Amino acid sequence: MAVSWEDSVTSSINTIYLLFSAYLVFVMQLGFAMLCAGSVRAKNAMNIMLTNVVDAVVGSISYYLFGFAFAFGSSSDSNPFIGTCFFALKDVPDGKYDYSYFLYQWSFAIAVAGITSGSIAERTQFSAYLIFSFFLSGFVYPIVAHWVWSSSGWLSTSSADLFLGSGAIDFAGSGVVHLVGAIAGFWGSLIEGPRVGRYDAFGRPVVMRGHNATLVVLGTFLLWFGWFGFNPGSFNEILVAYPNTTNQGNWTAIGRTAVTTTLSGSMAGIVTLFGRRLLVGHWDALDVCNGVLGGFVAITSGCAVVEPWAAIICGFVAAWVLIGLNMVALKLHFDDPLEAVQLHGGCGAWGLIFTGLFAKEEFIIQAYDSGKGGISRSYGLLLGGGWGLFCAQAIELVAIVAWVSVTMGPLFYILHKLKVLRISIDEEVAGLDISSHGGYAYHNQEDDERPLRYKDYIRMQN
Amino acid sequence: MAVSWEDSVTSSINTIYLLFSAYLVFVMQLGFAMLCAGSVRAKNAMNIMLTNVVDAVVGSISYYLFGFAFAFGSSSDSNPFIGTCFFALKDVPDGKYDYSYFLYQWSFAIAVAGITSGSIAERTQFSAYLIFSFFLSGFVYPIVAHWVWSSSGWLSTSSADLFLGSGAIDFAGSGVVHLVGAIAGFWGSLIEGPRVGRYDAFGRPVVMRGHNATLVVLGTFLLWFGWFGFNPGSFNEILVAYPNTTNQGNWTAIGRTAVTTTLSGSMAGIVTLFGRRLLVGHWDALDVCNGVLGGFVAITSGCAVVEPWAAIICGFVAAWVLIGLNMVALKLHFDDPLEAVQLHGGCGAWGLIFTGLFAKEEFIIQAYDSGKGGISRSYGLLLGGGWGLFCAQAIELVAIVAWVSVTMGPLFYILHKLKVLRISIDEEVAGLDISSHGGYAYHNQEDDERPLRYKDYIRMQN
Amino acid sequence: MAVSWEDSVTSSINTIYLLFSAYLVFVMQLGFAMLCAGSVRAKNAMNIMLTNVVDAVVGSISYYLFGFAFAFGSSSDSNPFIGTCFFALKDVPDGKYDYSYFLYQWSFAIAVAGITSGSIAERTQFSAYLIFSFFLSGFVYPIVAHWVWSSSGWLSTSSADLFLGSGAIDFAGSGVVHLVGAIAGFWGSLIEGPRVGRYDAFGRPVVMRGHNATLVVLGTFLLWFGWFGFNPGSFNEILVAYPNTTNQGNWTAIGRTAVTTTLSGSMAGIVTLFGRRLLVGHWDALDVCNGVLGGFVAITSGCAVVEPWAAIICGFVAAWVLIGLNMVALKLHFDDPLEAVQLHGGCGAWGLIFTGLFAKEEFIIQAYDSGKGGISRSYGLLLGGGWGLFCAQAIELVAIVAWVSVTMGPLFYILHKLKVLRISIDEEVAGLDISSHGGYAYHNQEDDERPLRYKDYIRMQN
Repeated sequence: MAVSWEDSVTSSINTIYLLFSAYLVFVMQLGFAMLCAGSVRAKNAMNIMLTNVVDAVVGSISYYLFGFAFAFGSSSDSNPFIGTCFFALKDVPDGKYDYSYFLYQWSFAIAVAGITSGSIAERTQFSAYLIFSFFLSGFVYPIVAHWVWSSSGWLSTSSADLFLGSGAIDFAGSGVVHLVGAIAGFWGSLIEGPRVGRYDAFGRPVVMRGHNATLVVLGTFLLWFGWFGFNPGSFNEILVAYPNTTNQGNWTAIGRTAVTTTLSGSMAGIVTLFGRRLLVGHWDALDVCNGVLGGFVAITSGCAVVEPWAAIICGFVAAWVLIGLNMVALKLHFDDPLEAVQLHGGCGAWGLIFTGLFAKEEFIIQAYDSGKGGISRSYGLLLGGGWGLFCAQAIELVAIVAWVSVTMGPLFYILHKLKVLRISIDEEVAGLDISSHGGYAYHNQEDDERPLRYKDYIRMQN
Repeated sequence: MAVSWEDSVTSSINTIYLLFSAYLVFVMQLGFAMLCAGSVRAKNAMNIMLTNVVDAVVGSISYYLFGFAFAFGSSSDSNPFIGTCFFALKDVPDGKYDYSYFLYQWSFAIAVAGITSGSIAERTQFSAYLIFSFFLSGFVYPIVAHWVWSSSGWLSTSSADLFLGSGAIDFAGSGVVHLVGAIAGFWGSLIEGPRVGRYDAFGRPVVMRGHNATLVVLGTFLLWFGWFGFNPGSFNEILVAYPNTTNQGNWTAIGRTAVTTTLSGSMAGIVTLFGRRLLVGHWDALDVCNGVLGGFVAITSGCAVVEPWAAIICGFVAAWVLIGLNMVALKLHFDDPLEAVQLHGGCGAWGLIFTGLFAKEEFIIQAYDSGKGGISRSYGLLLGGGWGLFCAQAIELVAIVAWVSVTMGPLFYILHKLKVLRISIDEEVAGLDISSHGGYAYHNQEDDERPLRYKDYIRMQN
Repeated sequence: MAVSWEDSVTSSINTIYLLFSAYLVFVMQLGFAMLCAGSVRAKNAMNIMLTNVVDAVVGSISYYLFGFAFAFGSSSDSNPFIGTCFFALKDVPDGKYDYSYFLYQWSFAIAVAGITSGSIAERTQFSAYLIFSFFLSGFVYPIVAHWVWSSSGWLSTSSADLFLGSGAIDFAGSGVVHLVGAIAGFWGSLIEGPRVGRYDAFGRPVVMRGHNATLVVLGTFLLWFGWFGFNPGSFNEILVAYPNTTNQGNWTAIGRTAVTTTLSGSMAGIVTLFGRRLLVGHWDALDVCNGVLGGFVAITSGCAVVEPWAAIICGFVAAWVLIGLNMVALKLHFDDPLEAVQLHGGCGAWGLIFTGLFAKEEFIIQAYDSGKGGISRSYGLLLGGGWGLFCAQAIELVAIVAWVSVTMGPLFYILHKLKVLRISIDEEVAGLDISSHGGYAYHNQEDDERPLRYKDYIRMQN
């Protein structure tokens, strides 16, 4: 009862594809760390990098113990709301899931809290970070993943009973990953309030530049690199031939997904370059980086089911969504050091809607039915596919906002009330690195060899 | 009429190989950005990183719209000079080209302008950069790619009617990519002239060190990593068995290509280490980095068709070519902040010649005829292969120099005459970042929170 | 006599898997460079990065010429101590080894000296570094690799005559790579003595913080990324089906190996986070980074043959091993700037023992007998597998310590006696970069354009 040659080849090819995609997605964790570090002031660099490392190491253990089970633990008596088996990888590998699938999903799970960490940067107690990160990546996120990506999820596009005759199409997670992280960040940032000095006595915003633009560019390119695992990798399998074609299969759709991803991010970058030039009068590298990322976030939902030309529209709109929301945030005195809410939330929401408008029937059948067809599905509203998909997308959007709000909102509020959420003003002015992490991230040649300790710092102030 | 099992397996394997190679080549864009940033002064870091981001985002859209078509758009009435179909990926995928091939070629196209950006760094107006980058990667480069790599190109090694009974062998593009970028940079740098202060009142060179050697090393290693996609990836397909062997196929040649690439770069690094130690008296890390890159540039043409021992010779000579040209440049008061002309131009040219000398017949048949043989081809002059290949290589070299000179030379000259090429002396002294990009790349702890604006900077000078 | 379709597919799949794994392992060289650079003071950053570049370029040529031959050159009259054929890749590819295998092993060989470079950082003459690096990666390391990994090695798990009915299981090299590098570093660091000022006049340690925590985090994540090539890649082949299963093969074990690796590193990171919080009172990002790496080093030996839950135990203990050894080192006035001896030596040794305790019979058969079984093997002591494997692991540990000590110890001692090992106190205070490498790594905006030379520096001191 050995494995057949055909099955061996199929498993080997798909495992290579999925594992190396997982490795790329993991690089996004590094990309986030560098992007965030560069975007905050030097005195908080160590703190924000530690949050990214912690997301990865805490997320590994929690996702192994129960996160994966909550998300993908579908047994015969499966639950549309939450998974119920595969805790601590019990019974894995089974017929459906091999270890490579776990690793791929793990690389997504650890990314979510990283988004949120940007919104609450430079002012959050580290112990509060540990609590919310554990709760978000171990419970709140896996539930949403279950709804949309597990075959038994109520919003799933591959379930037997399609919601609104469609299910929500969130191929790689504009909603499941990016919007979830952003809504969590929204509540955290709102409850904490702006950083000290972010708005002056007259309510005018004071620019607080990150300390290192090179790290921002490094992070952006690493995220781009990782997105090639995030979006094209979400097919999970590459060796799937489409009937009624002479030479197409998942390999074609995977290549096309890499292309749509690239085009959307690029278009958003170009629009931001010229748009910000018109608005502020200079060519701003950091804005372009954020614009590119906004284009990626937006296309993440529909990357597999839209034409390349539609991806360009996706990126074009995403750039303006980001520019517009940044203006609104400034007006409302909302302070998100990484623009994470505007970027991952705004562009993530636009991505869900975009898919409802431009998803192509043929490509949906490729991505979700292995090109076989036979199931009647709603597709993009503007392509004549009816309101089913569009409404499903809107409902996913609303459901995510509601679910994350009712879970993470109270959590942040309780932490706030217990006075364990935000650091003191003194600590904030001194910086988190010296107050909580034992010293600054940088030591120049001229510095005393002996590092400054927080108590010395305090003494020096007096 | 489904896809056969054999075709599905073949497509899946080749797509994984090509897509992940493309992702690696994309990392080179990050490598360039870091290498360039570290090699310029801090006041211009943001500018040069933005040029690298812009190369990628502008290149994506232009290559999608027409660059790919110019390079690989060969129809039945194909043109040896320029491609004529596949605009905006119309009719892709077809039997020849899938999306993965487009993505792979895109990753090459965006690299070209990055080379040039180094030559004209620290003194070029950003709007001029946008114009030349668009023109170079959208038109000038694709034409050369068509000549050498498209089956209908006049210099192609895979055309029906081999030029000089050989065609030019430029496997991964010592000429097509590196020499093209370098010749463009040569004209740009020559027309702009040296940076302010690069040569003192007595004509003696003043060393202008880059601001961050760590970024240079980071960039170099990332480029090395990316070169594993650039050179071995250029086979495009891995599942090709060679007849008349028991166990060899493209997989063997691809591994060998990774080895020749590594050996050439390594040898060039070692020679530079000891050579520069003898010449300047210390062990110079930055020189070694450039030496390694010179070795890579040189082997890029012949990587697939030479023995490992020949690759060591290739790297040995490349190091001396770079050392020598750097001396010449200093003598001639030519100022290229990244040594890009010397490195990509000099070592790229040497690479073309090297291939004419050392290409092995058996390996040419492997790389271009799937090991089948049957076509009579010229091969390396020193291995007894006659003058055909050598002359074809020389002609590619001359053709590239001529083509890029007649296109990019006038463009730079016109921009110069219109006074939109070079920034003013005041802006150059202040730095591009503050004059054109809204602020410096770095903000230390001690800095005022409010960033310096250019008008403040100017006021402070008076 | 063409290659069969099945063989072509097998070779293509395995080559993709092995080559891309090699590329990932190569990234570890970059990771080491960044980790080391960030962990030393700014005045020595250039030096330590150059050592990492030199490891790669010198290692390429020496491993090509003889290192690979010493390690894997097994002919019919094979030698259990040292390999004897394949010098300069003569007769490669043959039936056993293709170029991709060489490249994969090369990526391991260049990593070894990088470990040692951390231990002797900030005080070693560069010429001494060249000598020991060449000797270590060209001779000392390949011999150990031959013992454990070559089929003719005396400790090999795949030899015909199993040592102690088991052979030593060091799947990806906790001992072969990490312990070897660490023991070399131990002797180097011990003979050189602590850095100037590391312990004050009263023998109390003076903290010498690295200059850039961002680089440490960057390096750590890059090493994590590379470890996905190091551990799962060590299967060398992915297309191997296991009999007596319905759907398992090396693809399953490879995925599991990626999971065990991740879990061990993550657990070690968590333990270090909380453990150091209790011990020193703050959340230390750099300690967590080292903890994660310690977890990876420890699991490297048994990654393929233990259950995920055991990997968590592995990481848990590894963290305490590292914390404990760091305390011991401080007590003994042992100064290793990167904690490389404690981390790679201590956790590497624990990894060998761990495998002797927790290796699972079924997984050993998968990793070493393609799941076929039939050979009686000892396995983990705590799982009832007897003392055979445990003793073999202990003997590998002792053999490595002895072999590296008798080769590298005398070498460092001779260099020391010849006064070419350590730099002078003046040079050490000034920093290696200005004394040996022509200038500092960093040049701020405010610096004079003309870089400081060592003779100017000396003059300024007087």
